[in-house]
Amino acid sequence: MSGSRAERLAGAMGDLDAVVVLNATEPFLDSAYWYLTGCSSGTFEGARAIVLSDGSLHVFVSILEEEAASFGSGYVHVYHTDAERREMMGEVLKHSRKVGVNYPSAAYGSVEWLKKVGDYEISDASSVIASVTAVKDAAEIEEISKACKITSKVAMQIPELLSEGVTEIEVASEMDIRMLRLGGSGNAFETIAAFGAGSSEPHHRPGSYALRKGDAALFDFGCKHGLYCSDLTRTVFLGEPPEIMRRAYEVVLEAQKAGMACIEAGAPAKDADLAARAVIDASEFRGRFIHSFGHGVGMNVHEPISLSPKSEQVLQAGNVVSAEPGVYIPGVGGIRIEDTVLVTEDGCRPLTEYDHSLTVV
Amino acid sequence: MSGSRAERLAGAMGDLDAVVVLNATEPFLDSAYWYLTGCSSGTFEGARAIVLSDGSLHVFVSILEEEAASFGSGYVHVYHTDAERREMMGEVLKHSRKVGVNYPSAAYGSVEWLKKVGDYEISDASSVIASVTAVKDAAEIEEISKACKITSKVAMQIPELLSEGVTEIEVASEMDIRMLRLGGSGNAFETIAAFGAGSSEPHHRPGSYALRKGDAALFDFGCKHGLYCSDLTRTVFLGEPPEIMRRAYEVVLEAQKAGMACIEAGAPAKDADLAARAVIDASEFRGRFIHSFGHGVGMNVHEPISLSPKSEQVLQAGNVVSAEPGVYIPGVGGIRIEDTVLVTEDGCRPLTEYDHSLTVV
Repeated sequence: MSGSRAERLAGAMGDLDAVVVLNATEPFLDSAYWYLTGCSSGTFEGARAIVLSDGSLHVFVSILEEEAASFGSGYVHVYHTDAERREMMGEVLKHSRKVGVNYPSAAYGSVEWLKKVGDYEISDASSVIASVTAVKDAAEIEEISKACKITSKVAMQIPELLSEGVTEIEVASEMDIRMLRLGGSGNAFETIAAFGAGSSEPHHRPGSYALRKGDAALFDFGCKHGLYCSDLTRTVFLGEPPEIMRRAYEVVLEAQKAGMACIEAGAPAKDADLAARAVIDASEFRGRFIHSFGHGVGMNVHEPISLSPKSEQVLQAGNVVSAEPGVYIPGVGGIRIEDTVLVTEDGCRPLTEYDHSLTVV
Repeated sequence: MSGSRAERLAGAMGDLDAVVVLNATEPFLDSAYWYLTGCSSGTFEGARAIVLSDGSLHVFVSILEEEAASFGSGYVHVYHTDAERREMMGEVLKHSRKVGVNYPSAAYGSVEWLKKVGDYEISDASSVIASVTAVKDAAEIEEISKACKITSKVAMQIPELLSEGVTEIEVASEMDIRMLRLGGSGNAFETIAAFGAGSSEPHHRPGSYALRKGDAALFDFGCKHGLYCSDLTRTVFLGEPPEIMRRAYEVVLEAQKAGMACIEAGAPAKDADLAARAVIDASEFRGRFIHSFGHGVGMNVHEPISLSPKSEQVLQAGNVVSAEPGVYIPGVGGIRIEDTVLVTEDGCRPLTEYDHSLTVV
C-alpha cells in the first residue's frame, strides 16, 4: 500500500475533481474524516475534508478543534463563522466542478449547504470512498485485532455470567464493563443480549427478561479499540436446550464453516452467503436465515462490504468482514454464530476466538 | 400536552402534507424515528416513518424489525425488498405533494432515494420536528432525570478517582464503568477527561497523559437512561492550582450562575449566554469563553436549542438544556462547569447535582 490515504483516494476518484467529506452534528459524523486525517482526538462537528485530484488534503475546522486538528494530516483551515467556512472552502474548490460526496454518510442539509458554496456537479462518491477504506492497512488491522481480542475474552467469560434469573440487561451491562476493563474504548454498538424467545429477534434490545432453564442466550457485541470495531456473536444455553435448538446450533455452525471456506481474496462476496445459505436451506430450517452472511467491519461496525446473495462485490486481501449466519424460530429462539475475519490472499483469518462448540451452562 | 406525538407534529407542520423520517445505516439514524414510534427495542436501519397531516403515523420496517416495530406506535408496513419499501411508501404518500424531511438528520442518499418514490416538493422540516421534540413530556423528563442522577453520582466520586500519575484514559474508563454499574444504558457521548494543558482543548479526547500536582482535571461526560442523555462537566484540581486557574474557576462559576438566572419559559435563549459572557468578558479572561453557553439535551446530547449570542429562539417550559460556560487558556488549562437543567415556568431546575465549589484533591 503506497501513498497517503488522501493520495489513494485521489487515485480512485476517476473523473471527479474533488471528494468532500462533511460532518454534521454528533452522531452524523463521517468516519471518512478520521480515516483521511488520521486524527484520533476531537469531535469535529461541522468539520469538512476535501481531497483534490492531486491527492492534497484540506480540512476545515472550527476554532474549537484547531488544536485537535493539528495532530492530523492535511492543510488545516480554521474558521470562526459559517461565512468564513464557506469562503475558505470555495477558495480550495475554485477549480473543481465535479465534486463527489458520501451519500449515505453526509446529512442532506450539509450537502445542500455545499451546493451554496459553489456551482458543483454533485455525485455519489460513496463507492469510491468505500473502495479505499475497505482495504485495511497494517495499523488498522492491528487496532481491529485488539478490539477483537478484548471481545473474545469477554465471549469466553459468558458462561460464568449466566445463571437462572439473571436478566438480559444485567448480563449486557457486565459484558460492557468487562470490555472497558480490558482496555476497550467503548462499545462498537449497543450490546445485544437476547434470552429465550427474544433470541429469535435478530436485533433484540436487552430487557428485563430473566433467564430460564432451557433458554438460548444470544450475545452480539463488540468494542472499539482506538477508533476501530469488533463484532462477535456467541449463543449458549442454560441447561439442556430443546432438541430443535440443539439441532439449529449444529446447522448454523456448519453454515458458518461452509461460508468461511469461501472467503479469500478474489472471491465473489456472495459466495460465502450462498454456501452458508445452502447448508441451512438443505436442513429443516429452510428459509430461517433471514439476513446476510456478513458485512464490512472497521471504524464503523457496518461497512459497505455486503456478503449477501445479490452482492456483486469481490473480496480483497485486507478486507475485514463479519461471518454470521443465523437461524431464527419465532416464539422459540434463535441461534447466531459470528466472527470477525480478515480476508487474506489464500483464505481468511478469524480475528475473534472463543469456544464455538455447543455450550450448555 | 395533548394528542399523540405524531398528532402534535401534524399540528406543527403548517402547509406540509407529510413529514418523512429516514434512517440510513448506524450511526445515521434519526432519533425522531424513536420519538414518534415510542420504540425502545430494535435498531431500525433503513426504516422510515411518515406522519401525515391528519396525524396518522406509518412506519416501514424490514422483516428483521417486524417484531420490534410491533411494540411501537403507528401502522407497521413490513418490506422484504427495496422495491416493496418504495411501493408501500408511494401508496401512503399518494396524496402528498409537500414533504418535509429532517435535513440535518437524514442521509443525503436517503433523501435522493425518497425523490424517486414520488414527485414531491422537498423542504426542511427540522425546525418543525425540533419544535415538537424540544418540549419534553413527563416520561421523557423522568428518563433524563435518571440519566442525570447516575452522572451526578459519578461526578461526586471524581475526587476519589484522582491521584498523581493516573491517566486520562484510566479515569475516563472507570467513570464509564461506574455509570453502567449505576444503571446507565451506555455513554451519552465519549467521556472527555482532560488534564493539565489538555483541559484548554474543549473537545479533548482522553489520552495517556498522567495527572500531575497543580493540574486542572476536567471531565465532561454523560450516560443514557433508556434512550435519553445527561450532560455534566466538573473540573477539579490535583493539589493547589496556580492562581490564574483558581481565579478562572471563580469566574466560570459566577458566569454559570448569571446565565442560569436568565433561564425561564419565555426568555430569549441568548440571554443566558450573554449574561455569562458578560461576567467572563468583564474579567481578565475576556474572549476566552470560546463556545456557546448551552444546547438542548434529550435523545441526542446535542439538540437544536442554542443558548448562544445570536440565537433567536425562545425558551419553553419542558426544554432541557445544558448550562456550560468555560474559560480556556491555551498551554495552561481550562475550566468548564456544566449542568443539565430543565426550563420551568418561573426559572430552571438543575437535574444534575454535585459539589460546585472549587475542589482541590
